[in-house]
Amino acid sequence: MQYNLIREMYIRNDDTICAPATIPGTGAISVIRVSGPEALQIADKVVSCRKGKIAQAKGYTIKFGTVLDAQGNTIDEVLVSIFRSPHSYTGEDSVEISCHASSYIVSVLANLLQEAGARAAEPGEFTQRAYLNGKMDLAQAEAVADVIASQNAAAHRIAFKQMKGGFSSELRTMRDELLELVSLMELELDFSEEEVEFADRSQLDSLLENIISHVTRLIDSFRLGNAIKNGVPVAIAGATNTGKSTLLNALLGEDRAIVSDVHGTTRDTIEETLNIDGVLFRFIDTAGLRETDEEVEKIGIERTFRKISEASIVLGMIDLTRDLETTFETIRSIISKVDFNTQKLAFLLNKTDISDVNNNVIISNYIVSELDGKTDTESTPIFPISAKSGAGISSLRAHLASTQRDFLTDSDTTLVTNQRHIQALTDTRTSLLRVRSGLASGLPTDLASQDIREAIYHIGSIVGEISTDEVLGNIFANFCIGK
Amino acid sequence: MQYNLIREMYIRNDDTICAPATIPGTGAISVIRVSGPEALQIADKVVSCRKGKIAQAKGYTIKFGTVLDAQGNTIDEVLVSIFRSPHSYTGEDSVEISCHASSYIVSVLANLLQEAGARAAEPGEFTQRAYLNGKMDLAQAEAVADVIASQNAAAHRIAFKQMKGGFSSELRTMRDELLELVSLMELELDFSEEEVEFADRSQLDSLLENIISHVTRLIDSFRLGNAIKNGVPVAIAGATNTGKSTLLNALLGEDRAIVSDVHGTTRDTIEETLNIDGVLFRFIDTAGLRETDEEVEKIGIERTFRKISEASIVLGMIDLTRDLETTFETIRSIISKVDFNTQKLAFLLNKTDISDVNNNVIISNYIVSELDGKTDTESTPIFPISAKSGAGISSLRAHLASTQRDFLTDSDTTLVTNQRHIQALTDTRTSLLRVRSGLASGLPTDLASQDIREAIYHIGSIVGEISTDEVLGNIFANFCIGK
Repeated sequence: MQYNLIREMYIRNDDTICAPATIPGTGAISVIRVSGPEALQIADKVVSCRKGKIAQAKGYTIKFGTVLDAQGNTIDEVLVSIFRSPHSYTGEDSVEISCHASSYIVSVLANLLQEAGARAAEPGEFTQRAYLNGKMDLAQAEAVADVIASQNAAAHRIAFKQMKGGFSSELRTMRDELLELVSLMELELDFSEEEVEFADRSQLDSLLENIISHVTRLIDSFRLGNAIKNGVPVAIAGATNTGKSTLLNALLGEDRAIVSDVHGTTRDTIEETLNIDGVLFRFIDTAGLRETDEEVEKIGIERTFRKISEASIVLGMIDLTRDLETTFETIRSIISKVDFNTQKLAFLLNKTDISDVNNNVIISNYIVSELDGKTDTESTPIFPISAKSGAGISSLRAHLASTQRDFLTDSDTTLVTNQRHIQALTDTRTSLLRVRSGLASGLPTDLASQDIREAIYHIGSIVGEISTDEVLGNIFANFCIGK
Repeated sequence: MQYNLIREMYIRNDDTICAPATIPGTGAISVIRVSGPEALQIADKVVSCRKGKIAQAKGYTIKFGTVLDAQGNTIDEVLVSIFRSPHSYTGEDSVEISCHASSYIVSVLANLLQEAGARAAEPGEFTQRAYLNGKMDLAQAEAVADVIASQNAAAHRIAFKQMKGGFSSELRTMRDELLELVSLMELELDFSEEEVEFADRSQLDSLLENIISHVTRLIDSFRLGNAIKNGVPVAIAGATNTGKSTLLNALLGEDRAIVSDVHGTTRDTIEETLNIDGVLFRFIDTAGLRETDEEVEKIGIERTFRKISEASIVLGMIDLTRDLETTFETIRSIISKVDFNTQKLAFLLNKTDISDVNNNVIISNYIVSELDGKTDTESTPIFPISAKSGAGISSLRAHLASTQRDFLTDSDTTLVTNQRHIQALTDTRTSLLRVRSGLASGLPTDLASQDIREAIYHIGSIVGEISTDEVLGNIFANFCIGK
């Protein structure tokens, strides 16, 4: 990943670029992309095809050819896929050269392409060209990286929908409504001496309210969207040594192979993630939980509480073999730390394989009594489990997956997952709230229309209708080379 | 990499197989291969193309299509490259599906292909089918993996030549000659009662001698071939703390990026490798070198001597700031361990930046006097260097590259790099030597012809004209999935 994107790359997009689109050495084949006005001619200089020139070939065809180095040594036999403008990823003439996945071959091929006139592409430059050539808007372009990074069904669905323009079209609708509104208001200004009101004030207010609530819903979706993208945060709370890692292993079960070590760049701690029924869950380690007077231990417990407050789901881990008094204390402590408006709690009564079944009943009753008045036991279930033997684990898995089912069954909901978009949406809302209160307090129409223009600007910045080189630089620098 | 290749896979090659041909998640695009009689029909079940069916498309064309999962969710938009039998890698109908490089998309796509009737391919199964369908012989198929693993010009050249059949055609020529010879001898047997000699004994002997010397040359090429494939072994010998890692860093210079951490599977120790002018060098760490009486230290020094004896090139590292007596001892010790018939030695006088220039002269003279009678100083050069400042390093690089120049300028030489081939060639030579001595000592023609048949068998086993399932299993199990 390089971050040396410079302003020039946004001016110089009339040259031809090349980059590997796959990592060599680890697979069977590697692909090198070439895109730009000279793509086909440059490919002809590097690849000799017996059956006619690449530049003469139709789009959506493949040519077999040989690559020779400057000394005349055969470097590889390759397949060249030909795409003609505008029917390509970038919208430009492009080729994809498929060679053996050898790092040596790929590096020689890249050098030969550069000697023939192509420039090594910057990270994300192919997608950036697709954006600049109108093949996709900025929000769609940003989603390309998310689609590639998606590791589960839910994250993939959000990213893919955004890439295909679902989010963009929602934003365009809002933007068009605001544009109509502001043009009516500005029409009033032109006729201001005649004191005409083109825009019905109450209609205007209800339109504003609709848009504000739409924007608010999108902003609120960030928590869920982000959870799905980076993993739904699950805090395992409870006394120490109650078998968190045994629990995780039990939850993994046959899916062990799909546990991810790939972590988002936004998280500075490495946490264990687990894909359950297509949703990524991120399990957060917490220290032991009990009242203490010792200063050092207090700090650790403060951190635990903070982690618990960041989780969407809290699993209260109870060790059935401990004494009841300690256990009751732990239960009270966990319940007191959960915000039942935004968080979901479940209790796990662990070690059913070695504990007295009476304990199980006593503790369950205690939990139900403690929850009374705070939440209902239906939304706060109790799972007797044995992390060691695996008893009860499948019910727990099903419960975890079900907590996210609403989203999974409602694929039309747009979830915002991008920090830049959230900022723009928050700015949009601020402007619109100002318009609304201004209109209520008799603010002059010209000031209100200026605020609406500002809101339109912020919405437009998401899809890239308004963008600065700096914003573009930041976005595409986070892509990998070759995309 | 899986090793569960079983006999059945050599019988069942009438089904359709699929596997990712690239590693997802690290690049822009991923490619999944499908090959077999139902490849196009299976692709049609998984990918919906607006413009006609894949099964109706011509070979060497590309179709754009959409992949939906069982629930009707769009998984990705893909490009499908179509290849029709026999004009494909495997010789069968094949498609290559190019999708976004997301591990989620690739896994869903692979599942959908399997639900549609494809089987997950075993490692190397695509190349194995290419072999079974006569697209390449066994030696060529083996070279495919070497081509992919090649990290420098020299290794690539050997592997690519073998993949394109250069080695195979040499073997076929030898085999044809032996076949002609044996058929003449067997003709004699048919007419044995008439005591006719169809084969001129001296001509036969000279032909045998030619083939034996050819086989011997191929066997001898293994040391160089293997060195080029895995890196030319260079031992850095000398007193401890003389700056081996500083030297390596200096040698790396601007090529730092192409230092490899990828190591062959045949080496059990990890050594540093460095590509100089297209040749891979493998630098072997050695312990300090001086006479000692202590038992433990002796063992370490024995290991050092063994490593030095395995190297093609020995770099004698002299610290110019040490006292002369120790230095002289080190010089004598290094010279005594080098076999000047098979190894190349060079002395590095290090730390020129901080040492007395007189020392340099005294030590150089001492080296020259010690080498007297053993080798000439032209083939054992002395390089005053400063590993720290980089002085003298470019001369050393040039020298190292020049030691391998003979091969690099003579690209027609065949170098054998495969242990299985060496075994077969050694067996061939043994049989032929037996024929030759047998004929000289009046061995009956029928026994001699049997030995020649054995030699023919061994040569044939290299290209796979004679092969057992077990041999095939071992060869293809070492491939990666998707190749």
